[in-house]
Amino acid sequence: MNRQRFLRLSFGGLTGLNFPTLQRASGSVLPRRSWQILNVDSSRLGRRMRTLATFGANDAGGIDRVAFSDANIEALDWVAGLLTDAGFTTEIDPAGNLIARRVGTEAGLLPLMFGSHIDSVPGGGNYDGQVGSMGSVEVAATLAGAGHVTRHPLEIAIFSNEEGGKTGSRALAGEVEAFELDIETASGFTIGEGLRRLGGDPDRLSDARRPRGSLAAFLELHIEQGAVLDADGIDIGVVEGIVGIIRWDVTVDGVTNHAGTTPMDRRADAMVAAARFVELVHRTARDTPGRQVATVGRLIAEPGVPNVIPGRVRLTLEVRDLSMEGIESLFAAVRRGAESIAAESGTAFSFDRFYTSRAAPTDARIQELVAGAAAELGLSARRMPSGAGHDAQSIALLAPVGMIFVPSVGGISHAAEERTTASDITNGANVLLRTLLAIDEAGL
Amino acid sequence: MNRQRFLRLSFGGLTGLNFPTLQRASGSVLPRRSWQILNVDSSRLGRRMRTLATFGANDAGGIDRVAFSDANIEALDWVAGLLTDAGFTTEIDPAGNLIARRVGTEAGLLPLMFGSHIDSVPGGGNYDGQVGSMGSVEVAATLAGAGHVTRHPLEIAIFSNEEGGKTGSRALAGEVEAFELDIETASGFTIGEGLRRLGGDPDRLSDARRPRGSLAAFLELHIEQGAVLDADGIDIGVVEGIVGIIRWDVTVDGVTNHAGTTPMDRRADAMVAAARFVELVHRTARDTPGRQVATVGRLIAEPGVPNVIPGRVRLTLEVRDLSMEGIESLFAAVRRGAESIAAESGTAFSFDRFYTSRAAPTDARIQELVAGAAAELGLSARRMPSGAGHDAQSIALLAPVGMIFVPSVGGISHAAEERTTASDITNGANVLLRTLLAIDEAGL
Repeated sequence: MNRQRFLRLSFGGLTGLNFPTLQRASGSVLPRRSWQILNVDSSRLGRRMRTLATFGANDAGGIDRVAFSDANIEALDWVAGLLTDAGFTTEIDPAGNLIARRVGTEAGLLPLMFGSHIDSVPGGGNYDGQVGSMGSVEVAATLAGAGHVTRHPLEIAIFSNEEGGKTGSRALAGEVEAFELDIETASGFTIGEGLRRLGGDPDRLSDARRPRGSLAAFLELHIEQGAVLDADGIDIGVVEGIVGIIRWDVTVDGVTNHAGTTPMDRRADAMVAAARFVELVHRTARDTPGRQVATVGRLIAEPGVPNVIPGRVRLTLEVRDLSMEGIESLFAAVRRGAESIAAESGTAFSFDRFYTSRAAPTDARIQELVAGAAAELGLSARRMPSGAGHDAQSIALLAPVGMIFVPSVGGISHAAEERTTASDITNGANVLLRTLLAIDEAGL
Repeated sequence: MNRQRFLRLSFGGLTGLNFPTLQRASGSVLPRRSWQILNVDSSRLGRRMRTLATFGANDAGGIDRVAFSDANIEALDWVAGLLTDAGFTTEIDPAGNLIARRVGTEAGLLPLMFGSHIDSVPGGGNYDGQVGSMGSVEVAATLAGAGHVTRHPLEIAIFSNEEGGKTGSRALAGEVEAFELDIETASGFTIGEGLRRLGGDPDRLSDARRPRGSLAAFLELHIEQGAVLDADGIDIGVVEGIVGIIRWDVTVDGVTNHAGTTPMDRRADAMVAAARFVELVHRTARDTPGRQVATVGRLIAEPGVPNVIPGRVRLTLEVRDLSMEGIESLFAAVRRGAESIAAESGTAFSFDRFYTSRAAPTDARIQELVAGAAAELGLSARRMPSGAGHDAQSIALLAPVGMIFVPSVGGISHAAEERTTASDITNGANVLLRTLLAIDEAGL
């Protein structure tokens, strides 16, 4: 682990609006910015992370703070108080999102939005969503403490029900469909009931919608939820986009037969054909240039008893890539390979696409700013896709978005053992702060 | 399909006990036997097969005549009547077996036993067990009609609960354990209750036991329950033995991970390792010289959802061979291969042997006699293992056994669609008759 775990930069106060020059690594001479020495307060941030962890804390050391639960509501109320203290006005929008606002110094500029979520999966950990939410609160508090007012209006969003379908962020993009309101969530409430519990109004959901082009940008800080940064000792992930996802139900039809009386050379064994398919999927995704991933997560053999050759296997295929074309291309290769497997094994493959989530690239200019902020802070950074879905994915439908990843220890997520170190959280919040201010200063 | 479907031999009456010579295919000159022109009555046999099919007939055209059901009891009673008509005395032994006896002409000879079973699986067909049972009844009727009395005493056994664990035949070998009597069967009755329903007495089960060496031989006619004879157009299977079976629970442990955030080269995917194992099992069984078979019939991935890399896969491995050493050798090869898969995929394999059924070779001399009988009848024959278990397997523990297979159309068994043609049934009964009389005449 060569990664620089914590930048021991002293907390600097506001230096006024003078713009001394700064020698950049690239050699170009830029104005020294007002916020150059603004850094978040890591001890305050750590303290508030620990307080947030008490809402819905479970015996495993994680949280059960599913969307719309009492713990979710109480935590949201506490966060709203922190934002009020930082000089933001707060409201719950019709989609149950906590929206905090602060006006900027220049009229006519679009708001700069940042945020994440504080709801968890059942039995979740203390970092997913929470690092970005408290990082955003910390950025607000740091700006307030420094008396720094941005040119753009600021909006901090704590989105509702991320884990149960990104309801809040998708509502901003006008993507929530009416039927979803009747879906029962892990809280026991339907999404519609849950939005009301948070203070939203499902009958006015369309009022939560933001027109395309109504935000200057959206930034989200989040834990990686993978092991790449941690394993390779990288401080900051510069997210290139949230991958698209397509899922298929795959059915392999062979011939059910007696496992004792059917010679090996007379079998049309759906299990063997399915096994070859699993290997094909893995090999194709691994050997194709790019960072696509493909997974067979479920496999069910019928009849599924030790002494019968399976006549049918049903399995799931999931492919993720930053490019939808990349997904289609990989699928086409896999499908061709399946035809060969079918021909040689006397089986037949059929594919039923049942889920599509479109890829959401982040804004290339914001990627540059995130990478620059990390470099200024002396942090190592790597460009990478986000293999998991995030609220930023929804907002990408209406505004330029950027995402900052910090390492997850061991890549563990959605579990009590989920962990991101205090220094990584601080690093992430500082990168968020600097990226925000860079956009605020120069625009995109 | 070149197979001679039906031998149109006229039914011949008894020619007395004169022994004219017969030119054998081998060129040796043997005495012409009294039974040379004895053949079963195919129309009577077909009629009785159809009557038997009425006991427990279901709407699918098959039967629900599970052991100990009313249909089982009524059918057994009907069969006992046919055997009484053929001059046999009948009784139900303590293990619920219908045992029919006829004395022979020579004192001091051990009984020649033959038979099968008439119970079915739930939703079974009209041929499994029933061809051998009615073939045996037909042999008895043919002998009676011809007035031919064998040298050896004859015993016809219709064994109890073959489909539910070969209770009746295993009781003859003293293999039924006390706990089995409490097992609930498909009939809703325990085996103990069921044996009483048939007229047996589970408290005296040991009285059903036959000492090793107390039978001259045992013969069983049965449908193949595979597709080899049918596909290759062979009339008669000369069974070399009932294969041994060993089953293992195999556990593949990898690392559960997020299917989106874990790059292909950082996965320890238990599904991919399991898939390679399935292919390894298939390839090893197929490419190793011999007629062993190996099957993965069940595979369960955990957690088993589309978007999670499975951290654990549990699957079953079943290997069958005529030789237990063959099974062990194949397993050793598979286990070595699994070690390579584990090393390359970052997973671990563990094996838990949970079922063993020992192989039961048939008597080589009886195989010769079965093959000879088929040849005399102008029937094509092939030596083959029985991949399925049979009552003959139990009796092999105490006496020389032989088995005669007739084709199953399409290899279908344990289903309403199970079928063996009338001509094949007749052929099988004639081979049974000739083999029986050959043993009776010359011993083994």
